[in-house]
Amino acid sequence: MNDSIDNDSIDYARYDRIRPIRWTGSALELLDQRQLPFKVEYLTCTSSDEVAAAIHALAVRGAPAIGIAAAWGVVLAAREIVAADPAEALARLEPALQRLNAARPTAVNLAWALQRMRTALRAAGNDWRGMLELEALAIAEEDLAANRLMGTLGAALIAPGSGVLTHCNTGSLATAGFGTALGVIRAGVAQGRIGKVYAGETRPWLQGARLTVWELQQDDIPATLIADSAASHLMKTGAVQWVVVGADRICANGDVANKIGTYQLAITAHHHGVKVMVVAPSSTVDMATASGESIEIEEREPGEMFGIGGVRTVAEGISAWNPVFDVTPAALIDAIVTEKGVIERPDEEKMRAAFSAP
Amino acid sequence: MNDSIDNDSIDYARYDRIRPIRWTGSALELLDQRQLPFKVEYLTCTSSDEVAAAIHALAVRGAPAIGIAAAWGVVLAAREIVAADPAEALARLEPALQRLNAARPTAVNLAWALQRMRTALRAAGNDWRGMLELEALAIAEEDLAANRLMGTLGAALIAPGSGVLTHCNTGSLATAGFGTALGVIRAGVAQGRIGKVYAGETRPWLQGARLTVWELQQDDIPATLIADSAASHLMKTGAVQWVVVGADRICANGDVANKIGTYQLAITAHHHGVKVMVVAPSSTVDMATASGESIEIEEREPGEMFGIGGVRTVAEGISAWNPVFDVTPAALIDAIVTEKGVIERPDEEKMRAAFSAP
Repeated sequence: MNDSIDNDSIDYARYDRIRPIRWTGSALELLDQRQLPFKVEYLTCTSSDEVAAAIHALAVRGAPAIGIAAAWGVVLAAREIVAADPAEALARLEPALQRLNAARPTAVNLAWALQRMRTALRAAGNDWRGMLELEALAIAEEDLAANRLMGTLGAALIAPGSGVLTHCNTGSLATAGFGTALGVIRAGVAQGRIGKVYAGETRPWLQGARLTVWELQQDDIPATLIADSAASHLMKTGAVQWVVVGADRICANGDVANKIGTYQLAITAHHHGVKVMVVAPSSTVDMATASGESIEIEEREPGEMFGIGGVRTVAEGISAWNPVFDVTPAALIDAIVTEKGVIERPDEEKMRAAFSAP
Repeated sequence: MNDSIDNDSIDYARYDRIRPIRWTGSALELLDQRQLPFKVEYLTCTSSDEVAAAIHALAVRGAPAIGIAAAWGVVLAAREIVAADPAEALARLEPALQRLNAARPTAVNLAWALQRMRTALRAAGNDWRGMLELEALAIAEEDLAANRLMGTLGAALIAPGSGVLTHCNTGSLATAGFGTALGVIRAGVAQGRIGKVYAGETRPWLQGARLTVWELQQDDIPATLIADSAASHLMKTGAVQWVVVGADRICANGDVANKIGTYQLAITAHHHGVKVMVVAPSSTVDMATASGESIEIEEREPGEMFGIGGVRTVAEGISAWNPVFDVTPAALIDAIVTEKGVIERPDEEKMRAAFSAP
């Protein structure tokens, strides 16, 4: 079905210039996304607790990027302990792993990456520190490769001349590179399928306004910013055929936890006959979570709603509710794209067929 | 049906403390809503062009308040001309009226108020300047009375113990006092019907975050601020039973133009079985506009999307689309409340029965 797609037609160097996570061999450099788009500044982390703090503070964000950063956090943690063998290392590393895991509650990639690191350590020999470093590198490289593959798979669903709307930031900034939903958009633009890209600003953190349109600008991909609440009006004009978003967790029944506002976009897309595509690496799939009902939704400080860029916009003494994610039921999703393939109109049966443990 | 409602139970002095428009007898004082919530500062307008500029710059906002301010603008314009009689005054005032009318394109109250001033002038005698002043005062006083009546009518639809979500600012700040949708909320709180009030922040101008929660705070009504894109997630929790919003224009078929994001709220409310109430004075009804399809939607500067409070949050060179209003079709509206009564499940027939010219 996708035979006509020419993967080689995508000039990755041209369409993907940013890298948020750099391993120097002795330290982890994280592009501080709180400073974007005005300052391109890398934080240098030399301990796992610094990595955990950077994750918690949203210096690094995006489910895949969080997983990758955490894996490098384990490499740094390994340098802080003395252990005779992998088993002892595993025990001694566990507190640091727990702290990394607790840095963000919703993204399943974080727990997944830490589990991969544990598994690699268990299988390691004497050079278990080197093995952990190789595993972290593999996680990052596999993520980039998965994103490029998902880009091609997802773009194949999009008819030439389409407009797309995305939410939050799912780009190179949120991953090892290329992006998940934004990777599909990059591929779609490169292949001439996508004529117009819209990005919701994504309150309260403005990932769309501060990050996504900036990131696309770096790659000379024109994009138009809209208020989150203008999405339905935009859909009514016929300007978009697909909403393309990422995921922080995909459940066994195809329900998707993603940035607050995704659920709303899916409802209104459904209302307008606009299709919804969720793009995420299979590490985001959590077959142990039956449905969205059982996902813990992270609520952050109300204070994030009280201002922008350090400028307070809301009176003192006001209450706010600041959930960071919401759950989009599978019934509102037209396609889930992972590096393992495309699941159209996802449900429990299709998810089990694609992702059940062997 | 509403016999049990005790209008007297509402202590208006306690639930309604702010006045955005003050006529001093020689000048119009407008509470500069661009400075709220941090500075309560009145602009003094001594000419109709200053009033038009204040309307255009959003120093005064909210469809009813714009109409009232424009009426006072006509009073000021009358002081700037020399005319022998009302007919000559009408001709000489027309350019100023046109400039007032052009200050905002979507709100029908603006044109309505100007038309009332023209009609009053035509019927005036020698003291046509005094007559204009009386008419402007009448417009303001009728608005306040209408709001109080709508508050009681709308609140009667709300079952005790309900939660409500509102959008933008439709309060005392947007009217002569008490508010339209926020008047219903004030009445509902005063009568013990409403247990919980949520307000969407209303990007890009943050009327909800800057104005609505502040205004409610002045009257000791607790309210919780949410991101516009958290509305659906909120509805899913069951916390709200009604979305209560204002209107900038109500069409002959019951379609409603209101602040961008209203349409999205109505779609998602419908999805969750949450009801939608539109509250606006009958001056907002425009029987000459058949449906929402023919409403001109104001689009403002993309720059309003690029920052907040003078702080830029978006990179240079980014494009944005900034529609200020959207149209909610009548089919998604459960009740339209005006001072003339309640229209449940509005359609062309019910609208014509209620609002056709005698």
